[in-house]
Amino acid sequence: MSIAKLPSAGFSITVRVALIADASAIGRLTTAVGEAGAIVTALDVVSSDHRRVVVDLTCDTSDTAHAERVTGALEALPGVTVRKVSDRTFLLHLGGKIEVTPKVSLRNRDELSMAYTPGVARVCQAIADNPDDARRLTIKRNTVAVVTDGSAVLGLGNLGPAAALPVMEGKAALFKKFAGVDAWPVCLDTQDTDQIVEIVTAIAPVYGGINLEDIAAPRCFEIEARLRERLDIPVFHDDQHGTAIVVLAALTNALHVVGKRIEDVRITVSGAGAAGTAIMNLLLKAGVGDIIACDRPGALHRGMAGLSPAWQRLVECTNRDNFSGTLAKAVAGSDVFIGVSAPNVLSGADVATMATDPIVFALANPDPEIDPREAAEHAAIVATGRSDQPNQINNVLAFPGVFRGMLDAQATGWSDEAALAAAEAIAGVVGRDKANPSFIVPSVFDPHVAPAVAQAVKDALRPPQTNGGS
Amino acid sequence: MSIAKLPSAGFSITVRVALIADASAIGRLTTAVGEAGAIVTALDVVSSDHRRVVVDLTCDTSDTAHAERVTGALEALPGVTVRKVSDRTFLLHLGGKIEVTPKVSLRNRDELSMAYTPGVARVCQAIADNPDDARRLTIKRNTVAVVTDGSAVLGLGNLGPAAALPVMEGKAALFKKFAGVDAWPVCLDTQDTDQIVEIVTAIAPVYGGINLEDIAAPRCFEIEARLRERLDIPVFHDDQHGTAIVVLAALTNALHVVGKRIEDVRITVSGAGAAGTAIMNLLLKAGVGDIIACDRPGALHRGMAGLSPAWQRLVECTNRDNFSGTLAKAVAGSDVFIGVSAPNVLSGADVATMATDPIVFALANPDPEIDPREAAEHAAIVATGRSDQPNQINNVLAFPGVFRGMLDAQATGWSDEAALAAAEAIAGVVGRDKANPSFIVPSVFDPHVAPAVAQAVKDALRPPQTNGGS
Repeated sequence: MSIAKLPSAGFSITVRVALIADASAIGRLTTAVGEAGAIVTALDVVSSDHRRVVVDLTCDTSDTAHAERVTGALEALPGVTVRKVSDRTFLLHLGGKIEVTPKVSLRNRDELSMAYTPGVARVCQAIADNPDDARRLTIKRNTVAVVTDGSAVLGLGNLGPAAALPVMEGKAALFKKFAGVDAWPVCLDTQDTDQIVEIVTAIAPVYGGINLEDIAAPRCFEIEARLRERLDIPVFHDDQHGTAIVVLAALTNALHVVGKRIEDVRITVSGAGAAGTAIMNLLLKAGVGDIIACDRPGALHRGMAGLSPAWQRLVECTNRDNFSGTLAKAVAGSDVFIGVSAPNVLSGADVATMATDPIVFALANPDPEIDPREAAEHAAIVATGRSDQPNQINNVLAFPGVFRGMLDAQATGWSDEAALAAAEAIAGVVGRDKANPSFIVPSVFDPHVAPAVAQAVKDALRPPQTNGGS
Repeated sequence: MSIAKLPSAGFSITVRVALIADASAIGRLTTAVGEAGAIVTALDVVSSDHRRVVVDLTCDTSDTAHAERVTGALEALPGVTVRKVSDRTFLLHLGGKIEVTPKVSLRNRDELSMAYTPGVARVCQAIADNPDDARRLTIKRNTVAVVTDGSAVLGLGNLGPAAALPVMEGKAALFKKFAGVDAWPVCLDTQDTDQIVEIVTAIAPVYGGINLEDIAAPRCFEIEARLRERLDIPVFHDDQHGTAIVVLAALTNALHVVGKRIEDVRITVSGAGAAGTAIMNLLLKAGVGDIIACDRPGALHRGMAGLSPAWQRLVECTNRDNFSGTLAKAVAGSDVFIGVSAPNVLSGADVATMATDPIVFALANPDPEIDPREAAEHAAIVATGRSDQPNQINNVLAFPGVFRGMLDAQATGWSDEAALAAAEAIAGVVGRDKANPSFIVPSVFDPHVAPAVAQAVKDALRPPQTNGGS
């Protein structure tokens, strides 16, 4: 079975079946599910009499086609009728995943007079007289916009703003859950750089920070750079900097485990898009020895034909020996492989050519650059973006605490120093003593992560920074 | 004491005072507050010993200067020390009045897999395949944008987007409290019509309706009209249509009380701005006999010099006899006066010249066109925008139910028929049997209002309308 096809709750279904009530009836059901490769997670009897029993059988499957095969296997059992199949993920998304809730009571006239007219007029006037009061008297101090144009939704591509909304809602839910940040989805029905910059600038008064999300490269670079110029609040493209922070955190602990210093290692990065570029920039700031950036044309090097402006900037500060050649050749002798590219671009044989104690971060999602089980045959440490493998590189480790820290610092911009501090904080939650090949990053549910990141970011951004940086 | 200067909770303060503990000490305090014209609403002992008592004394004052006089009166008492003065309205606004809350649980890996990656990808793909699913699988079906450019904030004028935010947050809180609608503040740092239209169009995918708010005339007319052309969700400028709906509701019951039919009455309207224009348009749709629109130049009439395009449209369907002259002369013989203009433009003597059983709606806020006590000497029915007088014309009666109905209808536009239905629903909550000169509109806290309005609007807007209308 391919690594991509393990059952997960993301493809969980609940099947309502009626069946003849005999001693082994339910046993036959669960056996059929297991034989079809799914995992039973719950079994609830809905009704029962002497002849018949109706049960809700919930199980994790590996994808939509697999869910259909599981349902078919149940239907094929003698005496069994499938009455309904519910997709638990869709049920959970019905009506959306966030809501806007009043923090004030509005039970009577007096409360209305204070929260709304006439009392609110004085609050408005106070802010007009002293604009800094907006951070004290409005939601601005705890609120961020999650902005997308829907051009690069997860790994799905250019789905547009409406189809991107479920991701942005989910992100907003995570912001609140993990760091108490109020986040609001801004899904823009335009993919024009000028227009996006203009719109985000115009909506900024409500927010204490801007999280750019799922915007395709290279547009995302320009949008971020121009917004940083124009706004007096931090602008942070999570696909770039959130990923970079978690990768650096994981690499810090991984290098400690194998006993190498960051300034001594050579890293090959597969994928020089938004995430890859941000990762490489942060690794350079962290003092990494050398990096070779690879993309579809192979290793990017100075003098190469057809380099985009972004790649031109990249080759000027990477690839010390100006190596040219395939990814496989670049990897040979490298200490670290970091993939943010596409499935199955690396083989176990490639990993075998790396330096001693190779570190492999295969982060393409859901299908990594190399099956982590194959990589582990040759590598000292393997990490992926998957939740069903050890060492999950997940942005959830970074963005909640990053924005918590920005807001608490009342930061006016972002900085590379803050990113380095955030990575150090995440690595520190694991700790040098506890790090081992299967534990280089904390669990996304570790409650110490967001506060540690928030404190590090707050310290790094205070006093207020200008909108320069990474 | 002027009508504008009655104490209200909007100017409530809590004063912490220390005083010598004798039998009459606290009595002297409350007496002093009463003599200073404020109203004691709470008195809490903070600490007490045999020599001294510390109390928190909360009282409603009429404005900031009055609050200072009250504090001064307390300080002047022998043996009394004022330790701290807290403004309760500012305390209530600290940190803002709304928050973004997850509706889904995110306690463990399985929940995360369904609400966020990898499960969310299927939901995104479903919406990309069938855009109508956005109303089912995202917050769009229950969410509206409250959009302002800060150009006409309450009666305070052009305060800009940051200072408008407290009003928009308050409105969002009311939306949820009264109709379960999720509303989000969009405060735009631009007052350019083209840009506002472009921005609201671009952010629309997240929303099921657009509430325009506190945007100055005449820009608000063009913005609304152009957005209605471009968007497939309803666009509703509350300062116009919300006010018009509540005015028509109140007028319906008032005319019933005095026994006049709407088609027989002549109405003089003072103030031909955004609210006045919308009121007149809706009254015309409701079949009112005649309307004379007055503004700074007096009665607006055909052939008048310097008519703006908006006023030109207005005079073409009002002022049957093409009357020209002052407001006072227009009012003479009129059945109804509706003011949405400025304080003190009408006198009791003017009301005395009206037709029998005059109806006076003096809605300028906080200071009405005429002191309602003076108007009541001559009028059969008086209404204001004030919460401390009978017959408060308050948009809160309309907008929550209006948007609840739009969302429930999955409406694609707004219509005059829906506005007429909403007004009829509000009037109906009072009922013909119960209406009397002091009760022509329901209380803003009457729980029957929003559901009645929502049902009426939903019925009027189904099947989906096009974006035409008022």
